[in-house]
Amino acid sequence: MSKILNEVLLANRDYVAGFDKADLAMPPARQFAILTCMDARLDPAKYAGLSEGDAHVVRNAGGRASDDAIRSLVISYKLLGTKEWFVIHHTDCGMETFSNEIMTDLCASSLETASVDASGWHDHGAGPGSTEAKYINWLTIKNQAESVLEDVNRIKAHPLVPANIPVYGYVYDVKSGSLIEVPEATAAGRAS
Amino acid sequence: MSKILNEVLLANRDYVAGFDKADLAMPPARQFAILTCMDARLDPAKYAGLSEGDAHVVRNAGGRASDDAIRSLVISYKLLGTKEWFVIHHTDCGMETFSNEIMTDLCASSLETASVDASGWHDHGAGPGSTEAKYINWLTIKNQAESVLEDVNRIKAHPLVPANIPVYGYVYDVKSGSLIEVPEATAAGRAS
Repeated sequence: MSKILNEVLLANRDYVAGFDKADLAMPPARQFAILTCMDARLDPAKYAGLSEGDAHVVRNAGGRASDDAIRSLVISYKLLGTKEWFVIHHTDCGMETFSNEIMTDLCASSLETASVDASGWHDHGAGPGSTEAKYINWLTIKNQAESVLEDVNRIKAHPLVPANIPVYGYVYDVKSGSLIEVPEATAAGRAS
Repeated sequence: MSKILNEVLLANRDYVAGFDKADLAMPPARQFAILTCMDARLDPAKYAGLSEGDAHVVRNAGGRASDDAIRSLVISYKLLGTKEWFVIHHTDCGMETFSNEIMTDLCASSLETASVDASGWHDHGAGPGSTEAKYINWLTIKNQAESVLEDVNRIKAHPLVPANIPVYGYVYDVKSGSLIEVPEATAAGRAS
């Protein structure tokens, strides 16, 4: 067994020993959801004050409003009753450190076979029906406030998202732990 | 300001007051990543023993190996050096409570406009190039061990995923807090 796997299972044993959350209901008690980055330095439960059972947390590279993040948020609303959503990107994000071109180079040999395959992988960037196989949109970030605004706008404009859901836009500062509002994004997120 | 937004910002103020994580590096210190569900009852930092800076955490509805989750994991490996991945679904998952058909009904009026639009939304289920616009794959779950195995297999078979990354498959039990191994998935995840 790997060192990491062993450590995770030992930590889980400790968690189980003190576990007192058996009676939590499936729908988030505080009826909200957070979309944020997978970055290891971010702990949304800590930076936003969540206990188990409080809120849905969706995370991916960048905290981007990808189709899959929107799938998750729509399920969060339609089936599990969340009524407010946060989009929280962060300073010093890895998604600012590279470009689609760099990533394409890094993946060059693999990408020879990565267009449309049996497992359903395809090319978000080029769009459905495209025959350009080599371009994947890695959803990189140039400016945090702009990426938050772009994602709030994408969520609000999405045909499956109800107009009455407020979406708040924030940037988490990894040097201070602070949530910094992106006022244009929060304003856009409130508009119906 | 909404009650929830106010509570989140107050909790964040407390977090900032005790913040001592300013010196964490961007790459995950313990070089692993967890893909798990957005479910409010799950706190991966607690159930797997993570401190800020330790590991990437990717979350979506179901903890599924969607294209976007794989985008995130590939970035996690290629740019930020993770070397082991976990796929962790859980008991009593919301994704077991409905079907694609139910969700399609719930979204029926919105779906009239939800095929291929300017924002890039399209239909995962029908695949690229399809003209069937009404079918979205919500990635529902019928059996937790099977969904874990399916996702580990999808990750391992993916053309952008290196063969040497171990992928461990587990189910989190919301009644006990325990991580339960899916042996077939972990075995599949170790194979190169």
